[in-house]
Formats: sequence, C-alpha cells, structure tokens
Amino acid sequence: MTALRSISIAGTGNVAFHLGKALVAAGWKIGKVYGRNRSKGLILARTFNATYVDTIRELDDDLILLCVKDDAIPLLASEIDPGKFVAHTSGSMALSSLDPIRNKGVLYPLQTFTIDRDTAFSKVPVLIESNSEEHLKLLAVLAGSISEKVVSATSEDRKTVHLSAVYVNNFVNHLALKAKELMDKKGLDWELLQPLLSETILKLEDIGPLQAQTGPARRNDQKTITSHLDQISGRHKEIYEVLTRSIQETYGQS
Amino acid sequence: MTALRSISIAGTGNVAFHLGKALVAAGWKIGKVYGRNRSKGLILARTFNATYVDTIRELDDDLILLCVKDDAIPLLASEIDPGKFVAHTSGSMALSSLDPIRNKGVLYPLQTFTIDRDTAFSKVPVLIESNSEEHLKLLAVLAGSISEKVVSATSEDRKTVHLSAVYVNNFVNHLALKAKELMDKKGLDWELLQPLLSETILKLEDIGPLQAQTGPARRNDQKTITSHLDQISGRHKEIYEVLTRSIQETYGQS
Repeated sequence: MTALRSISIAGTGNVAFHLGKALVAAGWKIGKVYGRNRSKGLILARTFNATYVDTIRELDDDLILLCVKDDAIPLLASEIDPGKFVAHTSGSMALSSLDPIRNKGVLYPLQTFTIDRDTAFSKVPVLIESNSEEHLKLLAVLAGSISEKVVSATSEDRKTVHLSAVYVNNFVNHLALKAKELMDKKGLDWELLQPLLSETILKLEDIGPLQAQTGPARRNDQKTITSHLDQISGRHKEIYEVLTRSIQETYGQS
Repeated sequence: MTALRSISIAGTGNVAFHLGKALVAAGWKIGKVYGRNRSKGLILARTFNATYVDTIRELDDDLILLCVKDDAIPLLASEIDPGKFVAHTSGSMALSSLDPIRNKGVLYPLQTFTIDRDTAFSKVPVLIESNSEEHLKLLAVLAGSISEKVVSATSEDRKTVHLSAVYVNNFVNHLALKAKELMDKKGLDWELLQPLLSETILKLEDIGPLQAQTGPARRNDQKTITSHLDQISGRHKEIYEVLTRSIQETYGQS
C-alpha cells in the first residue's frame, strides 16, 4: 500500500467526531463508520458522508481507525481480519494491544475533546507509531494533513506523555474545582480567579514552570501557609499540604 | 478629602512596578516613591516621573500605597503619621494590619506579576476595602480607573480569595512542573503538553471545572490508574494518589 484511499472509523465518541471531522476537512474519504451506538453512528456517518455499518467486520477501508475506549481495543482488534491495517487512538494502550493484527499503528491526538467545543486540530500534537516503516509513513502523511506537530513515539514514551497529560489536564482541572469550592462556600464569584489562571498558564509557557513558581511555599512563608491551612480541612488540607511540601522540596526549602 | 490629587508608592517590586505603571497610564500623579532598595527606587521614581525618598516618613501624598512584602506592612504602618490615608496591596493581610493608621484601605490586584511580562491591568480584578465609606469610595475610583472589575471585599473574604489563588496559580504551576519532569526524564519535549494545558483552561472556564473533568479518576478506570502509579514514586506518587482520590470522591466513586 503506497497511499490510503479511504478510512474506516470505529467509535462514535468525541475522538471519532473531532478526528473524523478534521480528516474530512483535510480531504480524506471516510468510507464506513461502525459504532455500538447505532443512532450516534448514523449521525456520524451522515456528517462524514460515510456509510454506517452494524458490525466491526464490515469495515473494509485501507485503514481502520479505532476511536474507542481502551478496554474495547483488544476485543475489536481480535474481531478484525488480521490482514487489515488497523490503528488505535489511545494514549495509554500499547501498540501490541492490537495483536493479532499484522500491520498495526497508533495515531494519538494529545488533546481533550468535547462534543460541542471546536478544536483547532492543526495545533494538536499527534503521536504516531507502527510496527512497519511503510505503515508509519502512511500515518505520518495522515497525521501531517491535520496537524502541524506530528511526533513518532514508542508505546513506552506515549505512556509517559499520557501520564503527564493527566497532570496538566485532569489534575489542573480538579485544582480549579477545589478553588471554586472555596469561593462558592463564601458566596464569592469564582470568575474572579480566571484572569489569574489564564496568566498562570501564559507565564509558565513563556518562562517555564520552574522559573514561574511564586507563592508562600516557594518563598517558604510559613506564616501564610499556616493561615491557609487554618481555613481548610480534610481532603482540601491534604492536597494543600502535599503540593506545598513538593514545592518546598523542589526549591530546597525543606 | 473628596479626591486624590497624588499618590505615594512604597515598595519597588513587581506590584509597585505594574500597579504604578497602570496608575500613571490612567492619568494619576505619583508624587513620591520609597523603597529600601535605593537603586530600584530611583528607577521606579524616574519611570513614574516621581521623586525618590529615603525614608517612609517622607511620603506625603493623599494616599500612601504599600506595595511591600506582607511582613513589612505592620512595620511600615507604625512608622507613618497615623493621620495619613494608607492602603496596602496584599491578598492575605487584614485591614487591621495597618493599625494605628486611622484611615486605612486595601487595594489588592488579583494577579501574578512579573517584571518583564506586560499585564493587561484592565482585566485584573481589584479587591478593595476600607474602614471608612469615604475612603472606600476614593479607592473605588482609583481601582475603577485601571480595572474593569472592582469588588468590595472584607478581609475574611480576601483571605479566601488569596487561598483560592494559591490553587489556581501556585499549585497549577507546580503540576505543570511535575508533568515537565516526567517528560524531561524520557527526553520528551514538554511543549507537546501546552496545547492540552491551554485547552484545559479554556474548557473549564467555558463549562466549569465540575463538568469539564475527564480522565481515569473521573471514570474510575482502575487499570489506567494502576499503570500510571507503576510509572512514578515518592512525592510524584503521593500527588497522583491524593488528587485521584479527591476526584473519585467528588464524583461519588470511592
């Protein structure tokens, strides 16, 4: 195979929707769409000008892209003709999770997708992997058509990227929630914090998080730390304490 | 006093610099600048077209703004003529930290300032407080001339805002550092994570952090959590565990 003529998509979630939309916008043909959720699958197929099919075995395009939950990947891979070219889109699953597929790949877009939020896919890094040089090239062309940032990464490296993504996405979001809880409890408008949050990100991306760190833990201001701890309890306190200790350690202050 | 004719600034750090600059840009006259660091004080005074003075007692404008470290506030306040109108700019210090000043106030800009990063002050929320209605009005006019978002807040409320700010600024920055450490260790470019981090913030500001939460802890995906924990140790692991438990509790999954 020297070029992909068409692509099948399995899955009907946010990744299937946003990745499929980006591929169509880049001029790729989506031939068939499969998903357990028939009504979502039909909508997706219509959106992509593709055909909805009821079983995974009916997918027969040059590449079958699995945009499904991690657990479903080995199950679906075992049902597909092993002679097909199959790639998954997961951050944490190894390439080998597609065994017994012979020509396998990964195309992992490093972004959080939401159905009703538009994503500028060109800025989304895409990590690719394959067991065959030839198929890696096909994935590189595919990924390069939708993103400016395509990186070849092993399954091991991708695992690290996925873990790091949990910090900057899941954990950062949760800290914002904990801050919102504190504000809500006092009837304070949590939107007051948003300019600070935005500037925090711009600043750390500009000068790097090691340099950007400020605050009571950074300057070892025990008085302020104690006053903060007096205001919180339970899990809140535990989070405050472990992050404070970690900052103090980072800057050699404990 | 029905209007402020001129303002004195004590302090030569980032807040003094950015707040003073914003005030000058809004048309206010900075009369005198005091700072322990004489060379910085001279630069600041020149920037503001003001006069540098060697002692705090020489500040004699209609408002003396203390842009200094928390600990220095009570000390400086005790040296100023108690008949002067004095305000500090700290998030965590109570109004009473200015005793024995009779007309006292707070003007707290809720932002992280860096000397060489420009700050769009108009978007920075400013929290104000005073023990006198008349002086609160003066601070409201002053703050309103540099920011679109001026909020009257008690010392207690300001303490909560300051604590919440530690979460969205100090702690978020540190999580970015921990993610960068994981990437660095594998020789992976940490800038790969930046589009995700930016989208994380946009998304949580758009739909709120409670709705925006995703990830293994949110969906109680123990397999991925275990695989992540296998990759880390020490403080890294402790941070991962406490935030994961906290997310699970939030969504009733523990």
